[in-house]
Amino acid sequence: MRLQGGTFGFREISTPIFEHAELFTVKSGQSILEEMYAFRDKGGRDITLRPELTAPFIRFFVNELTDAPRPLKVFYVGPCFRYERPQSGRFREFYQFGAELIGAQNPESDAEVIALAASIMEKAGLKDYRIRVGHIGILRKKLKDAEVSPEMVPSILQKLDKKLYDEARPMMERSGMSDASIDEVVEITKVAGSVSVLEDFEGESKDYLQDVAKILDVGNVRKLQIDLGVIRGLDYYTGMVFEIDVPKLGAEKQVCGGGSYSLSELFGGEKVFSTGFAIGFDRTLMALEKDGFKAPRKGIEAYVIPVSERMREKAFEIVSALRAKGIAADVDLMRRNLAKNLKYANSIKARKAVIIGEIELEAQSAIVRDMETGYQEAVRIDDLAEFLLKNGRNGV
Amino acid sequence: MRLQGGTFGFREISTPIFEHAELFTVKSGQSILEEMYAFRDKGGRDITLRPELTAPFIRFFVNELTDAPRPLKVFYVGPCFRYERPQSGRFREFYQFGAELIGAQNPESDAEVIALAASIMEKAGLKDYRIRVGHIGILRKKLKDAEVSPEMVPSILQKLDKKLYDEARPMMERSGMSDASIDEVVEITKVAGSVSVLEDFEGESKDYLQDVAKILDVGNVRKLQIDLGVIRGLDYYTGMVFEIDVPKLGAEKQVCGGGSYSLSELFGGEKVFSTGFAIGFDRTLMALEKDGFKAPRKGIEAYVIPVSERMREKAFEIVSALRAKGIAADVDLMRRNLAKNLKYANSIKARKAVIIGEIELEAQSAIVRDMETGYQEAVRIDDLAEFLLKNGRNGV
Repeated sequence: MRLQGGTFGFREISTPIFEHAELFTVKSGQSILEEMYAFRDKGGRDITLRPELTAPFIRFFVNELTDAPRPLKVFYVGPCFRYERPQSGRFREFYQFGAELIGAQNPESDAEVIALAASIMEKAGLKDYRIRVGHIGILRKKLKDAEVSPEMVPSILQKLDKKLYDEARPMMERSGMSDASIDEVVEITKVAGSVSVLEDFEGESKDYLQDVAKILDVGNVRKLQIDLGVIRGLDYYTGMVFEIDVPKLGAEKQVCGGGSYSLSELFGGEKVFSTGFAIGFDRTLMALEKDGFKAPRKGIEAYVIPVSERMREKAFEIVSALRAKGIAADVDLMRRNLAKNLKYANSIKARKAVIIGEIELEAQSAIVRDMETGYQEAVRIDDLAEFLLKNGRNGV
Repeated sequence: MRLQGGTFGFREISTPIFEHAELFTVKSGQSILEEMYAFRDKGGRDITLRPELTAPFIRFFVNELTDAPRPLKVFYVGPCFRYERPQSGRFREFYQFGAELIGAQNPESDAEVIALAASIMEKAGLKDYRIRVGHIGILRKKLKDAEVSPEMVPSILQKLDKKLYDEARPMMERSGMSDASIDEVVEITKVAGSVSVLEDFEGESKDYLQDVAKILDVGNVRKLQIDLGVIRGLDYYTGMVFEIDVPKLGAEKQVCGGGSYSLSELFGGEKVFSTGFAIGFDRTLMALEKDGFKAPRKGIEAYVIPVSERMREKAFEIVSALRAKGIAADVDLMRRNLAKNLKYANSIKARKAVIIGEIELEAQSAIVRDMETGYQEAVRIDDLAEFLLKNGRNGV
């Protein structure tokens, strides 16, 4: 994830593990206190282990980064906390990856953020996922045009998000909406499918979303779907919104969510457009595991074995020289015999054993054994590093 | 640090940010509660933000890793917390790097751990440091032979650690030690200098420390000194102890400390020998800053600029292709003109600007501008990735 962030020109930033509790209640309301690890420190401050990474970033941005050249592209990754009964894919300490693009609001900046999220999924090896892109501005505008009072909007959107039309309809009626407008809103949330569904959709964000889709297509981002029913839980999204989900995960299928918003004025900053997303590690890992993925144990390139006490010093000299060249190497630290050392080399997934024997050493050589095939050959000690670099993966 | 850990065959592990408070009071005594961010969670549990990483690792080891092949070599890195007035080089949230080698206790396993610590210092670019190696077992044995009661040992060692002989002497007298033994103990703490000081020292750990020094010398580890006055604050060290300090940091000169110990039985595990160390990031950074070190801003390899609206789509296609090859690349997301784009490319430390113009595009080429020299040349679009890989640092 870090690597992909860097490849896309996003810079890593890091914020503290705990914050003033207020930072999160301002953004998410008092109810979030119940789900947080909130406590009072010895100085009487109400602090909390961060439940997410976006609000801390925005605070940091407002304090430190408002003068940075725009667009500002950042990512962050780290542990977050929620006080909840642990369950499948939901732990009390969990890792989030997030990215933000600040200072641009156009189809290409939105596409850029989606492209990074998709690239992370691809790089992680996830196969069975879909990117659902919508635009919350469309529904917000319809509700505003129908003169729904701003306080009612979040509750209505929440119901629509969950497709609870039986509950959303009466709320819209009470808000004074005509049956026609209500039908129209409901129909919008059902616009979903391939990008071509936009062809029959008449709304002002049609061109915008088509542009986003076009740029992603040019950028080779596949698995894109349009879904105007993507609403996202939080109030602050204003424009494009998207979710990545893995259908085979069932009810917990969403692994990534994001969109464009204007948040920083909440924390005393100027109004700036931002597009961002967060990826939950645990669900992403669950999805990978369902695909049969196992985290690779990287192992080391070479395990150096002195065959006798007298070879010990030479073994340390050799392992140091290999490490100095960046080769992941280890050496017998237990004074074991050759057989036990080979067994240990195997258990730590060494790709080669470098055996230092007296006869070979007289010829300035060592035996290099391929731990997978068992093939052995003599290699001059001066050439060892080059030999290992050429024949190994050096994958640490 | 991660990289060096891997190169030395240590594997990364990660433990939670908070733990039961008891984990740390068992190891360090009740007094540590005053310095911890300890609180009670909503379930009535006494938990604390971890003040250090060793006790959590040992807990993890006892629960999960006792069957792992020995030696077990691990490292860990992450935030720790202490409730203290922040001061120069001491923050409330701070990062620690630690490494442990479990299951071996001999000169080569101790040397291995010191070598890793030294290698991290070298790799970080620290120039002016020294590694002071001692052996707490020598003093412990002297005090034991003089029949000092075990409860008195920690206090005496604490005074000796700070070279407060005026306070240590009366304590040793009250413990029933003869003047001769007291003089002997005091003299031991003053044995310090190059490895050759051991030649005149007569004690059972002389050979051991000489062996450690020999292996480090073979492994090209320099800046080693012997200092039998290195005592370390904590009670659990039993054998070799070492500290790395940077004299120019003054009173806060210590950047790394460690040694061999037997800790896991405290947490219900079997007795196993371990050697480990911890490095404090903040002091190490202070030391690097005193040496004039500045963290490099890595920048990106290429910033792609479409010269006109009609070139925009091609720009996205090109940036995607570069990124797919792992090249850190970015693209205009603000629809700026060429001059402003070049200014932005400069501010984000792009090494090359890739300018997509209409005339060049007809010839399937783009203009590549070196942002440092200003030199421009036409490069075929199909050859762009190869050109950038060959001519760039691709340092993300």
